[in-house]
Amino acid sequence: MKIAVLGTGTVGRTIAAALAGLGHDVVIGTRDPQATLARTEPDVMGTAPFAQWHQSHGQVDVARFADAAAGADLVVNATNGVGSLAALTAAGAANLAGKVLVDIANPLDFRHGMPPVLNPVNTDSLGEEIQRTFPDIRVVKTLNTMNAALMVEPGRVAGGDHSVFVSGNDSDAKRDVAALLASLGHRDIIDLGDITTARGAEMILPIWLRLWGALGTADFNFKIAR
Amino acid sequence: MKIAVLGTGTVGRTIAAALAGLGHDVVIGTRDPQATLARTEPDVMGTAPFAQWHQSHGQVDVARFADAAAGADLVVNATNGVGSLAALTAAGAANLAGKVLVDIANPLDFRHGMPPVLNPVNTDSLGEEIQRTFPDIRVVKTLNTMNAALMVEPGRVAGGDHSVFVSGNDSDAKRDVAALLASLGHRDIIDLGDITTARGAEMILPIWLRLWGALGTADFNFKIAR
Repeated sequence: MKIAVLGTGTVGRTIAAALAGLGHDVVIGTRDPQATLARTEPDVMGTAPFAQWHQSHGQVDVARFADAAAGADLVVNATNGVGSLAALTAAGAANLAGKVLVDIANPLDFRHGMPPVLNPVNTDSLGEEIQRTFPDIRVVKTLNTMNAALMVEPGRVAGGDHSVFVSGNDSDAKRDVAALLASLGHRDIIDLGDITTARGAEMILPIWLRLWGALGTADFNFKIAR
Repeated sequence: MKIAVLGTGTVGRTIAAALAGLGHDVVIGTRDPQATLARTEPDVMGTAPFAQWHQSHGQVDVARFADAAAGADLVVNATNGVGSLAALTAAGAANLAGKVLVDIANPLDFRHGMPPVLNPVNTDSLGEEIQRTFPDIRVVKTLNTMNAALMVEPGRVAGGDHSVFVSGNDSDAKRDVAALLASLGHRDIIDLGDITTARGAEMILPIWLRLWGALGTADFNFKIAR
């Protein structure tokens, strides 16, 4: 499958590499590929410059948001949550129309210090905002409740015995995404319901962030024991 | 231990019965004991009238909020989240001062229809509101992330292999509450940190409510796989 991953951070790189490793034809979308590849310094989070990562992942193409989206069968939103609507606007509604968008982003707002808060929250979610803004995209919220390494290698914790959620209005889209999740090793895929259930999936982030601090590691995940 | 459970709903009754069963001296606090005992009809949720429950749980006393709190070593807030501050005000700051308050309530706001939203949320929590309003109480948020039956009998799901969180500013209070949780059968008790971490514990409710719908049962719980 031709997959565009929007976003060049840790999540975008990790997802892109894993999907390429499964044999998909993967392109990473960014605002300005030349600028992205020209950076030579780690970012504020200490993440290595993209060009360094790309040297060892040459099978993943890099393109402008719009070009990446236009050529893809399925699109992954791995951009920063506060910049997701702008990135999707740059990708272009026409290039995205009818396609499945796997929305991994969390609308974390760091403007008021740590820990970040969610914006939107409670009566709305980023997943719903994207679906409202781009009604022709088939949005499926998923994977936002765990760290990037676990998204693509669930077996690294508890033998993979934990859960992943999907939210979306389109049953076929959720079925396609569930198949993709299963191909990455996810076994307990829980369909929460329509895209309004993305509120719950995004609102799990505050406890995730505190668990990260309490446990001293991000290598954990929610399992729904039942 | 002398324990006051504030709240006569399903959570209050379930906790009171379990703690009495463990040998504690338990009193249920309510605004007006005579009115509570006089009701003969099920409530809007179909819960049986309190008097009917009390007939088979005569070892649990019933008293006004203030009298229940005054005589207790430890107090459990099992009131409706929107009424918790009023109930604690009725209990009386002086009667609660210095005591551990186990805060189980969720600030669910049903005024805008289903599913309910949280109020407060994101930048505040009910746990923090209670701690701010009653600075001499030692508030520990816990147990609000699962149904009442699981609170007192974790083994009824997955052999008890799931998690419970504690949030609070007072380490001794958290240690006492952890001991109480262990006596109820909880094995994975995770200290999230100070009372501001109650935000995360309360914000897990929206996905809990959607999981209830998706799974068709409330008999599930979050396990932190790690």
